Amino acid sequence: MTFEPLKGIKILDLTAVVVGPVATWRLGQYGAEIIKVENPSGDLMRGLGGLSPTGQHSGAYLHLNRGKRNICLDLKKQGGREICQKLVEWSDVIVANMRPDALERLGLDAQTIRTKYPEKIYCLITGYGTDGPYSGLPTYDSVLQGASGIAGLTMARDGKPVYVPMLICDHVVGEITAGAVMAALMQRHKTGQGASLEIPMFETMAAFVLQEHLAQQSFEPSVGPAGDLRLLSPHNKPVKTKDGYISFTINTDVQVKAFLKITDRTELLNDERFLTVATRAKFVSEWFEIRGAALENKTTDEWLEIFRKVDLPAMPCHTLETLTNDPHLKAVGLINFENHPTEGKTAVIRSTIQVDGEYPSAYSSAAPCGWDTKEILHDLGYSDAEMESLINENATFQFKTEQ
Amino acid sequence: MTFEPLKGIKILDLTAVVVGPVATWRLGQYGAEIIKVENPSGDLMRGLGGLSPTGQHSGAYLHLNRGKRNICLDLKKQGGREICQKLVEWSDVIVANMRPDALERLGLDAQTIRTKYPEKIYCLITGYGTDGPYSGLPTYDSVLQGASGIAGLTMARDGKPVYVPMLICDHVVGEITAGAVMAALMQRHKTGQGASLEIPMFETMAAFVLQEHLAQQSFEPSVGPAGDLRLLSPHNKPVKTKDGYISFTINTDVQVKAFLKITDRTELLNDERFLTVATRAKFVSEWFEIRGAALENKTTDEWLEIFRKVDLPAMPCHTLETLTNDPHLKAVGLINFENHPTEGKTAVIRSTIQVDGEYPSAYSSAAPCGWDTKEILHDLGYSDAEMESLINENATFQFKTEQ
Repeated sequence: MTFEPLKGIKILDLTAVVVGPVATWRLGQYGAEIIKVENPSGDLMRGLGGLSPTGQHSGAYLHLNRGKRNICLDLKKQGGREICQKLVEWSDVIVANMRPDALERLGLDAQTIRTKYPEKIYCLITGYGTDGPYSGLPTYDSVLQGASGIAGLTMARDGKPVYVPMLICDHVVGEITAGAVMAALMQRHKTGQGASLEIPMFETMAAFVLQEHLAQQSFEPSVGPAGDLRLLSPHNKPVKTKDGYISFTINTDVQVKAFLKITDRTELLNDERFLTVATRAKFVSEWFEIRGAALENKTTDEWLEIFRKVDLPAMPCHTLETLTNDPHLKAVGLINFENHPTEGKTAVIRSTIQVDGEYPSAYSSAAPCGWDTKEILHDLGYSDAEMESLINENATFQFKTEQ
Repeated sequence: MTFEPLKGIKILDLTAVVVGPVATWRLGQYGAEIIKVENPSGDLMRGLGGLSPTGQHSGAYLHLNRGKRNICLDLKKQGGREICQKLVEWSDVIVANMRPDALERLGLDAQTIRTKYPEKIYCLITGYGTDGPYSGLPTYDSVLQGASGIAGLTMARDGKPVYVPMLICDHVVGEITAGAVMAALMQRHKTGQGASLEIPMFETMAAFVLQEHLAQQSFEPSVGPAGDLRLLSPHNKPVKTKDGYISFTINTDVQVKAFLKITDRTELLNDERFLTVATRAKFVSEWFEIRGAALENKTTDEWLEIFRKVDLPAMPCHTLETLTNDPHLKAVGLINFENHPTEGKTAVIRSTIQVDGEYPSAYSSAAPCGWDTKEILHDLGYSDAEMESLINENATFQFKTEQ
């Protein structure tokens, strides 16, 4: 099936690494037409996300750059900048995650573009908002995990800070950015006017953390410390079984009773500390200690069966190895394989959003750097002679299989 | 300023806890009109997210339910169900995160509603997709962190599994859901047709994890193990300074050279293992050990100044306490205070998405359960007498300050 609400929307993708590519990938999932501009040295993520058969398409690069055509431009060259201006003209939306000063130098900043084209949507992802002391500073995911308090949360819980072993800030802000672009497109539909969006990653992730963890400091006077104490309990963790770990949650009073019964702790059934959400919140440490006690007398599978019989939410605690072999993921076909032009047989992670009973079909695979250069230049109206001249002066590059 | 691309879009919010409320909160940020239906026992999150002056509005509840009017309905009563059907008729979009079987019993499932109203958008957030063995099972955030491999990633890195101390799956899927609803609204604009969306949390988070971490298993034959080895390195963590921790990232060759110089490790400048992205990927463990070595001879502030002089991305590793006092967040005014009808002076975390140089104004504060019941019933055309009768039979409840 097709679900292409953004069909006909043209997106100029001036992004690299993760946060921008996630945003445009998601817009591509909804049918937008995307041209990714890549510099001749290539998106850093091609090499950073692990090995690939050619070394040019790490798994992460592949999965986050599906559905985009690729043009390779050297923006240090006049010819490259001219082509990029034609792409600006072509586009409905420009998404960038370069640093603001670099964009200004290239004439690719919001003000320059929207003065000329007020109907265009310009979306800039920055590390830090334009109006505070960190404005203009460079950033990366782990720096943001530190700055936004995510690593600090693990310090509060475990005594020392660690990062979530994922590019969680990049990935989250990318999704939020895709939403903001769609909102601006809807606005434009009504008013004919574009918009200049700026999404500062630090503030966005700080807000994301504080929505959950400002907690008792949300009030003045405060009613207690910041932090959701349930989530910060060291006992809130996957629980050891005879052969592995199990993940479960127990929130409602009914679930608490069921849990105490199946784990043979019926003496606690009438313990006033654990009778209601409110009392368990007060005795959160005691309650989580009971909840987090090991269940080593049975295997994970045995426990899962028992939990499910009483309708308690529980799942195995998967490793990457067991995750890809999960029977549910296999049954729903989350991962398929296709033939990539340079990497051979490669995995496709499909959209997980079901529309009218079906999953929209997958889009084209992530392209090598400069794969579509000539085709795009042709679409922009360049003659063969102009194209060759631009290629000869190294303003633009066409990927060659023999390269 | 106002940025209300969804103004005039009516959303019936049949969600509770976190994932659904995040989705509708985000849609509210873009100007949608939202009515949240709450059952008389109240959204579990009112109590779960920590204390509040009245005990009825935890910080998390407050921050995730801004901009929504609130009607309290007992859907076990005929009268409550009838009001809910009128709300279905009123709405453009229905968002639900109840379990599918409960929705079917109430006649609030996608098929029933869209057969009658094909122009409506129905969005169901489920734990697990409808077509696999886990279909219909209950879930919560930490169960999904276990199932989707997030906890397993920390086991791969640190030897034992822990959860991210946030409701990360709920929060991420909520944002993705908001985007999907906007995509469906754009589709409806073009075709006049609604859509039935289903967003399974497990698959969505598994895809989110695997986009980054399927990595070298993305190829057949695989070129190595799954997992982005940089992110799974135990050395990839905030680094101890004289007085705390600092977060930084070093990715490009230029950054590597700058880092080795400022940390007095110039003997490594020409070490072939660390010269390029590709060689550092090969010697990732050695490289991260160098990067992760303590910097205890200077304070965090001293190091930050040194890092910034050579343009290396670095930030303090904030705790919740230092985060809320961060000078940048203070300067940009991320958190403000307002007067909540029952909780007194409470924090408002504003939108972080800047539009045309301004942040859209904040929306109304999160409502007590049943705060807008009478007003909404009036809008739906109920007479005062009908209203009183429905209230008397406990089909619906109006919040009273004296309660």
